[in-house]
Amino acid sequence: MSYKAPVAQIDFILNHVVPFRDVAATDRFAEATPETATAILDEAGKLCTNVLAPLNRAGDETPARLENGVVRSSPGFADGFRAIAEGGWVGVSADPEFGGMGLPQALNMAVAEMMSGANLALQLNPLLTQGQIEALEHHASDEIKALYLPRLISGDWSGTMNLTEPGAGSDVGALVTKAEPAGDGTYRVTGQKIYITWGDSDVTANVCHLVLARLPGAPKGTRGISLFMVPKFIPDDAGEPGVANSLKVVSLEHKLGIHGSPTCVMSFEGATGWLVGAENKGMAAMFTMMNCARLGVGMQGVGVAEAALQQAVAYAHDRNQMGPIIQHPDVRRMLGTARAEIFAARAIGLACATAIDMERASGDADHAARAAFLTPIAKAYGTDVGIRVADLGVQVHGGMGYVEETGAAQYLRDVRITSIYEGTNGIQAMDLVGRKLSDGGEAAMRLLDEVLDGAKSAQSAHPQLANDLWQAAETLREATQSLLERDLTERFAGAVPYLTAFARVLGGHYHLRAAMAGGAAQQALARVFMARVLPHNAGALAEALAGLDDLTGISDAALAGDFAA
Amino acid sequence: MSYKAPVAQIDFILNHVVPFRDVAATDRFAEATPETATAILDEAGKLCTNVLAPLNRAGDETPARLENGVVRSSPGFADGFRAIAEGGWVGVSADPEFGGMGLPQALNMAVAEMMSGANLALQLNPLLTQGQIEALEHHASDEIKALYLPRLISGDWSGTMNLTEPGAGSDVGALVTKAEPAGDGTYRVTGQKIYITWGDSDVTANVCHLVLARLPGAPKGTRGISLFMVPKFIPDDAGEPGVANSLKVVSLEHKLGIHGSPTCVMSFEGATGWLVGAENKGMAAMFTMMNCARLGVGMQGVGVAEAALQQAVAYAHDRNQMGPIIQHPDVRRMLGTARAEIFAARAIGLACATAIDMERASGDADHAARAAFLTPIAKAYGTDVGIRVADLGVQVHGGMGYVEETGAAQYLRDVRITSIYEGTNGIQAMDLVGRKLSDGGEAAMRLLDEVLDGAKSAQSAHPQLANDLWQAAETLREATQSLLERDLTERFAGAVPYLTAFARVLGGHYHLRAAMAGGAAQQALARVFMARVLPHNAGALAEALAGLDDLTGISDAALAGDFAA
Repeated sequence: MSYKAPVAQIDFILNHVVPFRDVAATDRFAEATPETATAILDEAGKLCTNVLAPLNRAGDETPARLENGVVRSSPGFADGFRAIAEGGWVGVSADPEFGGMGLPQALNMAVAEMMSGANLALQLNPLLTQGQIEALEHHASDEIKALYLPRLISGDWSGTMNLTEPGAGSDVGALVTKAEPAGDGTYRVTGQKIYITWGDSDVTANVCHLVLARLPGAPKGTRGISLFMVPKFIPDDAGEPGVANSLKVVSLEHKLGIHGSPTCVMSFEGATGWLVGAENKGMAAMFTMMNCARLGVGMQGVGVAEAALQQAVAYAHDRNQMGPIIQHPDVRRMLGTARAEIFAARAIGLACATAIDMERASGDADHAARAAFLTPIAKAYGTDVGIRVADLGVQVHGGMGYVEETGAAQYLRDVRITSIYEGTNGIQAMDLVGRKLSDGGEAAMRLLDEVLDGAKSAQSAHPQLANDLWQAAETLREATQSLLERDLTERFAGAVPYLTAFARVLGGHYHLRAAMAGGAAQQALARVFMARVLPHNAGALAEALAGLDDLTGISDAALAGDFAA
Repeated sequence: MSYKAPVAQIDFILNHVVPFRDVAATDRFAEATPETATAILDEAGKLCTNVLAPLNRAGDETPARLENGVVRSSPGFADGFRAIAEGGWVGVSADPEFGGMGLPQALNMAVAEMMSGANLALQLNPLLTQGQIEALEHHASDEIKALYLPRLISGDWSGTMNLTEPGAGSDVGALVTKAEPAGDGTYRVTGQKIYITWGDSDVTANVCHLVLARLPGAPKGTRGISLFMVPKFIPDDAGEPGVANSLKVVSLEHKLGIHGSPTCVMSFEGATGWLVGAENKGMAAMFTMMNCARLGVGMQGVGVAEAALQQAVAYAHDRNQMGPIIQHPDVRRMLGTARAEIFAARAIGLACATAIDMERASGDADHAARAAFLTPIAKAYGTDVGIRVADLGVQVHGGMGYVEETGAAQYLRDVRITSIYEGTNGIQAMDLVGRKLSDGGEAAMRLLDEVLDGAKSAQSAHPQLANDLWQAAETLREATQSLLERDLTERFAGAVPYLTAFARVLGGHYHLRAAMAGGAAQQALARVFMARVLPHNAGALAEALAGLDDLTGISDAALAGDFAA
């Protein structure tokens, strides 16, 4: 395994495929020139290739562990995190007033992809910390900002998100953790939280928990949830970690992968917390955290896919079975399709990031709608591609892929979580066909118009590619219309294949742009995508429009295998 | 986790979906009446549900280990194997002359499926032993048969297949292990073999290795390979395990899954072996072993899929997030599709087994061609479904699926090997479009004619199902014609999606038969299959016919991510 950060591939997409130049043309992001972007990517790439990737196996083989109530991180992870922090990579997009670089999310997400490809378990720490920074920037009081933001952005402290409880996963509104006013402006937070990523560690001096909880008498469901900052050590007057708060790590989960990332069961036992944002408005702050994290998780999928594919290509190049197996048509099919899907997922993620940047720079509602529409697609498709490519990576290795020493299986085990956390991919798809189509399909249609325009302008240069894409976009437009006429429950039954189909059309769109701007290699890759990936939309859209009757026609007993009942 | 052997589901398929009654109508298998079949399935089902399944977690958590050169099996596995042996389940289809039950492969494979669902790691031992029994029955001398067969069939001894070497995986012809005549009718076998499943253990008194090796001066490649019986302990005059042979287990692999199955690196150091079959004809014997094992591996996929789905349904039934999640359309889509695909894969596997039985009972070439055609489909589709359903099982569990304690992840880790061993699924697909279409498509077309006839006779009772299947079969027929006009290299580039498409049409065929014979539940399930699985053939066949030019148009450097080269 020797991961090489894909700097040139990302650079090409920012310069030629997604409207990153529009971002650099705004006042807010005027510093993000192509030269700056390249320099940033180069520097982050070196860190990922040279420092973070070499720690990846150790994280798997020596998981984080709980010793006397304190989490000990995997070998080298403290140094790795320190290198991330010292490079300023936690705060790529954070407010310069508090020490951040203030650069676009497009660059932050590019860096996130590379860090994930190098070391997913470790990258989760800055990813979650960034989510917390976003939430505080948008919702916290000036006092909390002044105290926490500089320390989080510098990487001296890290941040967590405490949402899930044993009875409240996808249904966040079911949570029961309580927060009671202490009378001095603080609150006493009591409850159990599960699946808390990097809920404790020895890589930072303090761990800051953002905890969703209910105030006394709060309304039921999601309307009665508030957000609290609950630090592991309560900052003293100098802002240094002071007395220990009343919280502890109960246990760590034994997981399929990301062993280097401690997943904690947390117990808050009257812990001191500070309200972030307004009472009962915690869900809004949570969505700020989660939207950033969702796109970030999509980029995690892309990152691991890149790493897994690099390794599979290297193996296929070296492995001889009647000639190098990279020459075998079936192996080449797997590798080529994987490369084409990675490009598509990466471009979608970076397009989503540029939409976020444009929204922030301009306040324009269209950019906001674009960002909102692309986020679930970037998350779900990016992670689907991550899992699919890591799985192909195992397959290309043959028996060696099933043996842990090659590391191919680790990529699959690690990336498998990404379609589950930060909202399962099913939740993403329901968000897409529900909330994100609730504008009557306006954002979707605007996007499809762009795809069709792109196909039109590519018609003379690349007629076959353009026609394939045009057809696929038209079919998707019709399916979208049909979906809009259905009720939510029926839409939900087809949500996942619909999201996939939309992602593939977008992927085709960006491939076509790459074919226009790039050389023979990009054109060949676009051909692979149009010939081997896009045609699967026929099945996906048939499934998306299959309705619900067949599913409700099967009893629970039959699902379990009992057809006599 | 509480796996319940799917006796009734299998019984239904044998009685109503595949031509098992034709098997029972032959002289050779006259004993295999429906009543006998049901009794056999019931008895095996109890063993699987009550004895083997409860050992499955222990095999994962306490892997087999190497101690002082001897493999110690996982807790309870010796007892589990003993129960399999005492029930006579190693010899379900073996020759009664040597203690076997002489029953059809259809029943043997049904039992194999259930044992795999209960405990894949343990089931590998009887599966491999059965492959060895088959090879000896067909190729060994009377002396070897008399000595080994009774002991293998009784489960006193177990058998292994020693094919792979570090430089010879899919390319078996590259192997270099030597066998030199000792002058006394025996041979001295020297070489290293890898990935030897159950290469040693403490669950049987002897371990019998069938080893592929080269005689001095043998032709290069697969034409110079001979097969040798190399027992761990050389049988004494009474047929008891005697002196230790010159072979040893060098190490065990640390694998992604099937931890309870010891995967050995074996070293043969002038070990005493006996030739099985003729000199340089080892490949024929190997194919006898492998064909049986290939179908068996397909059934492993089905078995694990069944187990994973049962657990996912139980979890979805109990888990409340705004109502039981089994009622959520997206979860129901996953579970329903999985149930429909399991039915299809199981029916294909049992259809393949009945074809093998008919071939053996009648010697008819059409049955032989049918069995040969279905074997790679049963292996690849069965294992693809196994992996896909185990993966869905993890997804349905949400965060709990990523935590090892639920066992959902174990199913995924365990079953992941099945698309790799006994010939990767890519190899299966190449076998299908190469060797199995080398009759000019006769076997394929005969099968498709049957599918079309079935659709015709179902037309009045189930018009929509019948039409969907008819269309899909016609499209597949055209694609098959088109494939037949291409050279092998081009076929290979589309082999995997072509195999999948063929499997889905067969799945539709068996679903339609089930809908005709069964009740509302089977009809609803057939509807799910036609609406959500079969439509994906459009994409698969487009991919199958996409040719090779796009893949050869991408450089190796671009596959690795370097587009500038």
